[in-house]
Amino acid sequence: MAMAGDLPSELLEQAVQQMNTLPGVGRKTALRLVLNLLRRDEREVETFANAFLRLKKEIHYCRCCHNLSDTEVCPICSSRSRDRRIVCVVENVQDVMAIENTGQYNGLYHVLGGIISPMDAVGPQDIEIESLASRIETEPIREIIFALPTTMEGDTTTFYIHRRLQQVERKAQGAENEPLVFSQIARGMAIGNELEYTDEVTLGRSIVNRQMIS
Amino acid sequence: MAMAGDLPSELLEQAVQQMNTLPGVGRKTALRLVLNLLRRDEREVETFANAFLRLKKEIHYCRCCHNLSDTEVCPICSSRSRDRRIVCVVENVQDVMAIENTGQYNGLYHVLGGIISPMDAVGPQDIEIESLASRIETEPIREIIFALPTTMEGDTTTFYIHRRLQQVERKAQGAENEPLVFSQIARGMAIGNELEYTDEVTLGRSIVNRQMIS
Repeated sequence: MAMAGDLPSELLEQAVQQMNTLPGVGRKTALRLVLNLLRRDEREVETFANAFLRLKKEIHYCRCCHNLSDTEVCPICSSRSRDRRIVCVVENVQDVMAIENTGQYNGLYHVLGGIISPMDAVGPQDIEIESLASRIETEPIREIIFALPTTMEGDTTTFYIHRRLQQVERKAQGAENEPLVFSQIARGMAIGNELEYTDEVTLGRSIVNRQMIS
Repeated sequence: MAMAGDLPSELLEQAVQQMNTLPGVGRKTALRLVLNLLRRDEREVETFANAFLRLKKEIHYCRCCHNLSDTEVCPICSSRSRDRRIVCVVENVQDVMAIENTGQYNGLYHVLGGIISPMDAVGPQDIEIESLASRIETEPIREIIFALPTTMEGDTTTFYIHRRLQQVERKAQGAENEPLVFSQIARGMAIGNELEYTDEVTLGRSIVNRQMIS
């Protein structure tokens, strides 16, 4: 009987191929992971597999900010204790978590679901830009903070969205008297570092973008 | 609403925890893998999850050699073109594959499913030793090749099995005239290496275990 690949079992081959589809998981690792799974009870394997099926079937993307959520509106967007006048624009759910972990931000978010990247065939229409434009039309937002990657694609995306949002006519009550402010998270030296070990680009930016202390 | 961990969704948390159970997969990697999965179609996620469910439910362990198999008897054990007089004892399915890939072996196998390791709470009763004893009782086996890891645990396992098998009374026809031969795969320098870059233990063994050339 001809065997697919070099494995003694077609069932095993299929499982290894599936594991292999995960980023960074090569075939040898895939086999090791599958065999680890196989050593478990049938119940544990069901728990494993069903977690992903359940996630895919039942997960929501928050109607307001597009973050992952178990409910139509995520806990952050539906919270009464958040500052609803500030929206922080991020690339993905990991960035929301990263900022939440700082404990330094109490506003809302807007998750783009990616950044503009021609090389990856991601255009403005592929990420949540228009929904952000709708939000500033109707919500009492006073500040948009851009917290995208400090890369060329991240900066390009910030520039694009900034320009797009400036076109939006704000209809929220009182908005005419309060122009929308745009800001961007600071670039500079990381805390705890020495100057001579900081890369030139970052160090150069930290000088150019120096902040007044008096 | 209190959130488990730092993720915005309990569904996501469960999936990440499950991915995290895989060896070598930390929480950050688990999140990255789960989000990759989430970006796929529902159908692709079903294919992914079901491959593991199917594997666990339907996989067989070969009745003869305990290798993974889609059928009760694996293709190697049921093959008419294999030399049924030689059985190569290995630790696991990856070792069967490794030896098959050399193209240098045409006998049968016996997969122990582990090696004796007190530190990992694996004793002789936890691996397929008795089934091997049964095999040499009834099958026309002339040689047992030990191909276990060249570690202390591997050598201990080889020693234990060797001693156990010598106790077995062979009932196969003609077996009394043909004593069972035991061999072990060679230790020595790997092919393509320089002596000075070979570790001392291996180099020392390669001298002690030198093979006659004339």
